[in-house]
Amino acid sequence: MIRHKAQIPPVIREQFWGGEGSMASVPLLADDEFHGKGRVFAVNSLKPGHSIGVHTHKGDFEVYYILKGEGLYHDNGVDVRVKAGDVTYTWDGQCHGMINVGAEDLEMIALVLFTNA
Amino acid sequence: MIRHKAQIPPVIREQFWGGEGSMASVPLLADDEFHGKGRVFAVNSLKPGHSIGVHTHKGDFEVYYILKGEGLYHDNGVDVRVKAGDVTYTWDGQCHGMINVGAEDLEMIALVLFTNA
Repeated sequence: MIRHKAQIPPVIREQFWGGEGSMASVPLLADDEFHGKGRVFAVNSLKPGHSIGVHTHKGDFEVYYILKGEGLYHDNGVDVRVKAGDVTYTWDGQCHGMINVGAEDLEMIALVLFTNA
Repeated sequence: MIRHKAQIPPVIREQFWGGEGSMASVPLLADDEFHGKGRVFAVNSLKPGHSIGVHTHKGDFEVYYILKGEGLYHDNGVDVRVKAGDVTYTWDGQCHGMINVGAEDLEMIALVLFTNA
């Protein structure tokens, strides 16, 4: 089966986790396609100045793979600049957030898998 | 935690599933980081003419998200051209393969999650 990203309706998350503006999230897997292993596999994008507020993961972990743009990433207490090719890890119990500090859209793959046995 | 893709050693898979040439796979998660939920989350690339042979998934499913290049994708019996933004799904019990039919590297995100309860 093949889907084309442009044909998948993006989910718009306003002030996501208390961030500025909104995040557009294109789900590559629907909720019932994870077989209970996780809850997010998506292409997320933030316009310049928009952000994902800092939040803590509990019962799951998240990986971002940055595709394009420039971000200021909050890495469990430390702010770090990120760009295409960077991979971020927020393990169960850790927190993270992201601000688009560049001039173009910041785009990333996001994967959230559960940590239960 | 942050890793930079260029610092993660690629795994070179020669004649992957009987394909031509080799596939370079940069693992974004190590085996012990999946919490038992899956076994592949990687950036895979094929040089022009190189391929992944057709193979069947059993006990798991795989999603490709095409990042760049042009491929001829074998979608469980049907050959389809794919390019950046296309998302392919190989559910448990289905088969797939991929040939780079373009002039540049074909790059894709690959995710394999288990289907067990």
